Amino acid sequence: MSQEKHMESRIKYLFFPKSVAVIGASRSPGKIGHEILRNIVEYGFKGRVYPVNPRADKILELKCYKSILEVPDEVDLAVISIPAKFVPAVLEECGKKGVKAAAIISSGFKEVGNVELEERIVEIARKYGIRFIGPNIFGVYSAPSKLNATFGPTEVLAGKIAFITQSGALGIALMGWTIFAGIGLSAVVSLGNKADVDEADLLKYFVNDEHTKVVLIYMEGLNNGRRFMEAAMHCSLKKPIIVIKAGRSERGARAVASHTGSLAGSDVFYDVAFKQCGVLRALNVEEAFDWARAFTELPEPKGDNVVIITNGGGIGVMATDACSDYGLNLMELPRDLIEEFKKCMPPFGSPKNPVDLTGQAAYDEYSRALKVAFSDDRIHSIILLFCQTAVVDPPKLSEVISDIVREYKHCKPIVACYIGGEECQKAMRILEQNGIPAYPTPERAVSSLAAIYRWAKWKKKMLKKLKGK
Amino acid sequence: MSQEKHMESRIKYLFFPKSVAVIGASRSPGKIGHEILRNIVEYGFKGRVYPVNPRADKILELKCYKSILEVPDEVDLAVISIPAKFVPAVLEECGKKGVKAAAIISSGFKEVGNVELEERIVEIARKYGIRFIGPNIFGVYSAPSKLNATFGPTEVLAGKIAFITQSGALGIALMGWTIFAGIGLSAVVSLGNKADVDEADLLKYFVNDEHTKVVLIYMEGLNNGRRFMEAAMHCSLKKPIIVIKAGRSERGARAVASHTGSLAGSDVFYDVAFKQCGVLRALNVEEAFDWARAFTELPEPKGDNVVIITNGGGIGVMATDACSDYGLNLMELPRDLIEEFKKCMPPFGSPKNPVDLTGQAAYDEYSRALKVAFSDDRIHSIILLFCQTAVVDPPKLSEVISDIVREYKHCKPIVACYIGGEECQKAMRILEQNGIPAYPTPERAVSSLAAIYRWAKWKKKMLKKLKGK
Repeated sequence: MSQEKHMESRIKYLFFPKSVAVIGASRSPGKIGHEILRNIVEYGFKGRVYPVNPRADKILELKCYKSILEVPDEVDLAVISIPAKFVPAVLEECGKKGVKAAAIISSGFKEVGNVELEERIVEIARKYGIRFIGPNIFGVYSAPSKLNATFGPTEVLAGKIAFITQSGALGIALMGWTIFAGIGLSAVVSLGNKADVDEADLLKYFVNDEHTKVVLIYMEGLNNGRRFMEAAMHCSLKKPIIVIKAGRSERGARAVASHTGSLAGSDVFYDVAFKQCGVLRALNVEEAFDWARAFTELPEPKGDNVVIITNGGGIGVMATDACSDYGLNLMELPRDLIEEFKKCMPPFGSPKNPVDLTGQAAYDEYSRALKVAFSDDRIHSIILLFCQTAVVDPPKLSEVISDIVREYKHCKPIVACYIGGEECQKAMRILEQNGIPAYPTPERAVSSLAAIYRWAKWKKKMLKKLKGK
Repeated sequence: MSQEKHMESRIKYLFFPKSVAVIGASRSPGKIGHEILRNIVEYGFKGRVYPVNPRADKILELKCYKSILEVPDEVDLAVISIPAKFVPAVLEECGKKGVKAAAIISSGFKEVGNVELEERIVEIARKYGIRFIGPNIFGVYSAPSKLNATFGPTEVLAGKIAFITQSGALGIALMGWTIFAGIGLSAVVSLGNKADVDEADLLKYFVNDEHTKVVLIYMEGLNNGRRFMEAAMHCSLKKPIIVIKAGRSERGARAVASHTGSLAGSDVFYDVAFKQCGVLRALNVEEAFDWARAFTELPEPKGDNVVIITNGGGIGVMATDACSDYGLNLMELPRDLIEEFKKCMPPFGSPKNPVDLTGQAAYDEYSRALKVAFSDDRIHSIILLFCQTAVVDPPKLSEVISDIVREYKHCKPIVACYIGGEECQKAMRILEQNGIPAYPTPERAVSSLAAIYRWAKWKKKMLKKLKGK
């Protein structure tokens, strides 16, 4: 293995360590060195855990070591949460111990002007072949190994979205939000100062990580645009990348400079670069996670023809407008399909696209229309809309819809939007549990389906280009 | 009083009837004529209620009448839910009875091609001076008189937003959603075919309705653009109007035609017309209600200077970008204010705008920064951001913030965004209960504040123009 490959291969120890040392583990609840250890233990990490603290014998029932050198076992990952000035010496010990990867939580480096101190830890890490994230981070989470080495929330839901964040506070807050919103994550990486591991390294890793279906990045600035683009291009051909690039505006770029010290750079440059390498740019976190949820569940569409099925004309019109805004192709239904859809609705329904089953529609009407849409090969994607009415129990409708989507083996992308009260919110969760992304507005459903189309089209074009070479 | 004024004055009986007759009241739960009566009774209407049904003696414990003519009392409002063909005769009876306003729920008129039948009921209503909404509607709701004459949800929350909708299914579904989202309404009007009462009539009414602070309209098309513009211009000078105009796209306009039969018309025309008369155009329902919530709570800003207060750099950058997108002026803080804000944060915080209190900030830091922002006259509006951290209990933060806003008598517009888990959602509700609109993303908070600025600026310009005449 080349040195480069060797260094790349060590990234995986951030996510799949057999053993973790928490250097700076603390007995005091509320302290970061305590919270991280507790999260690792409580979340149920599958490997071995070694707290390191020269002034403690036991923390959280675990034997504590004075130094990492005393740990009577190999250590794959070191989580370091000690004052900045002690980090070089500790990292030196990690190197001697043969540690493969580290998460340097400590702050007090480049972000406060201590450039030299940061350079020293990079040197030490290079010398020993340690790959590290940070410094100035909240940690790392990995769903498949049940590792929550962060001082963020404990109850993170396992899923298929890898979330990389340059902002710490926002990252932790969003971890909490994903729990509330029922969104699952395969990994969370806090990047902080990016002294060693950066977005490009992680893309190279996640492209081959079987637990990750989509990568979502909150980014303020890149140190090496070319490296990122190469990694992103490579990754995008296999898995979608969604980026929220903050500091778009002139004033925002100044705010970035005083936040992470990154150069936000020309926004036009980022825009062009992202488009070139297939990166999907989201304008805010809501949009980013909306898209990510769609990517984790839905197959690629086999063609451009989209059909809207609704029980409300108004919501159908709004979805139609959104399709136009986002460049989706609402199919002009051929006569035979119009006849088929006509059979699913009362006489005053509209069998054109949007297919309006009317407010009288219940389970049977939705079932039949969905079956038409799934079974006909000329229809490639489905937008399913529902306005709460007295004739339908929304959770039951979700069960009915889920059964049909399962019957047709999730063979076409389908996104849903329910508008209504509490019961509709529950019902949307049921859809999501059954692999059907659901959204509170038609626009957000359409935007998510459109993201899938955008990625699929980029990929097709790019593969053609690569073949041509 | 002129005939026109007289007809206008009758609109109020839709919202403040002393007595209501439900013609077509039914004993069978699930039937529209039953559900409307039940909603009127259960929601606690303050006036008298008379069910009318020739084949029943009592419905829901209320004495039932064979015809409205038999009701031994004046009837202000008739809610009519009977087959279309019987509506003319019944309306004739209403006229004889001296009914002042009607809600014609029944469908089967112009929307299915029965133009003549619709024209007949218009004639009858004109003859007797009855003003009516519909036909083809779900009813009318009025918070102050506790009248829920709809077959929508019962538990509607009283508030200050008047909601007018051309789409029935969407309207009912959104009523349900407002309950879930904790949004209060002063009135809901289903417009349906708009054979008599239309948006212009309602704007003329709501402009003087003390219970309404903002009017929100879901619109597919206008029959009389000039009338609407006149009424909107007049209303906008006093109260903001938010419109979701569906059928923006060519395809959407076609969907509108097969839904309500309205001519969606040139979207550019609507856009120009709206701008001219101060109407704020929202692109979707989420945005519309976001803005409406801000308008119901916040005062008008006294100037352009906006300050962002945050505990997270990333969320601050996103809000900064959004301010730029929405044309808000992030104040360049003068030296003395920078010094003031510096006192509210640790040394590594950023006292520039966005004012970044850092992730260590708790109640005290937020309090002090908020006090600076409220007490200095050079600052006109506040965007308050919070990323959930371990050092703050979000509901408690909301209490602290609410106390300060109250102390300063809500004298400046303030919008908030919390990002985090369940506790943050609860905490945002607390803010809202205290008159501080809160949003799940910084962009939505900024967009709502920007709507207030847009309206205030239009008004200022228009008043100047009117004075000049």
